[in-house]
Amino acid sequence: MTLKLHNFFRSSTSTRLRAALNLKGLEYDYIAYALRKGETRTPEYLAKNPQGLVPSLELDDGTNPTQSLAIIDYLDHIAPDPALLPSDPVLRAKVQAAAHTMALDVHPVNNLKVIQHLEANHGLSKDDSQNWMRHWMSQGLGAYQALLPNGNAFSFSDTPQLCDICLVAQLYNAHRWGVDMTPFARLLEIEEHALKLPAFDAARPENQPDA
Amino acid sequence: MTLKLHNFFRSSTSTRLRAALNLKGLEYDYIAYALRKGETRTPEYLAKNPQGLVPSLELDDGTNPTQSLAIIDYLDHIAPDPALLPSDPVLRAKVQAAAHTMALDVHPVNNLKVIQHLEANHGLSKDDSQNWMRHWMSQGLGAYQALLPNGNAFSFSDTPQLCDICLVAQLYNAHRWGVDMTPFARLLEIEEHALKLPAFDAARPENQPDA
Repeated sequence: MTLKLHNFFRSSTSTRLRAALNLKGLEYDYIAYALRKGETRTPEYLAKNPQGLVPSLELDDGTNPTQSLAIIDYLDHIAPDPALLPSDPVLRAKVQAAAHTMALDVHPVNNLKVIQHLEANHGLSKDDSQNWMRHWMSQGLGAYQALLPNGNAFSFSDTPQLCDICLVAQLYNAHRWGVDMTPFARLLEIEEHALKLPAFDAARPENQPDA
Repeated sequence: MTLKLHNFFRSSTSTRLRAALNLKGLEYDYIAYALRKGETRTPEYLAKNPQGLVPSLELDDGTNPTQSLAIIDYLDHIAPDPALLPSDPVLRAKVQAAAHTMALDVHPVNNLKVIQHLEANHGLSKDDSQNWMRHWMSQGLGAYQALLPNGNAFSFSDTPQLCDICLVAQLYNAHRWGVDMTPFARLLEIEEHALKLPAFDAARPENQPDA
């Protein structure tokens, strides 16, 4: 199977998906889209994904699943090893809930299209946007950290799971936007563990061909 | 098992979870929190959910999974019938992607805490907030509708799935905020099918004790 990853180096949802593919040892063709140049709004790409968003993952038959978490769930079904969620239902819910503090409570509110809309329609300056970004990231990172048990290399275990993937992708943004990381020492430890793994290192935005 | 549902009648994530519980025939104690009165910010509730958000679902042993989609995944594991996701991995990804156009692309951006933050910190008026809400709902509903195949009573099948649950909960908000529904006839048909089912009818905000 040849997988085609439609993505953008700096998109955190793309980073998540690259990390998941790498952790599972799945090879993929890297196809880059410059978001700010509107490259996901072409008729050709809109035919693949009517939302005009990255990432999406094109399969051999042209099927093109969208939404990073839905695609990672797909990968967990076609390539179950290593599993990115625990099998125990309660622990599975906890790992997903942590993932969702990043993927639902932070990322959508800080999405590029949201920032552009705030600046174009509600008069926010670049400084306002930066404060907006930092506010939701600080709040979300605090929520994430409060959910964690102690004693693991990663968030809930000694191997990376879905929540770690979402966390590491978000931390790239937190650094980039100058979030004060003083309260989040535990999260920085997790990030350090993750980025030592080739799967996470190869998924980093700065290591992509379009960077 | 006695399940305690910590929730609020008008919260669309709470509506999702009520519908899922009802579809699976799981009984629960209804515990209401008035969000605007800060009832989720008490020390007692923050001990259950450090994020201070509803819904959460308290289990017999005091474990309190949070995040509606994570909890619904938990329910799909402990009460698999009826399944809320198909077993085929590609179709499963498609149903989840549709669910995520509501649960990730619309709901987080329109969350009460986001609106309050925009009004308190970025000078948005009530009219601005209404435009903001309508903008993201219209865009998301259009994206959802574009993903649907033809010929089913619900979005992807003749029985309701996760995406239908997320859609119906979001449509309540769309009506309430005055979104122009003219382009979304297919979605209104799905809503009509859903609300004829006792599980969805009983989950409606207006049918809750705190309404």
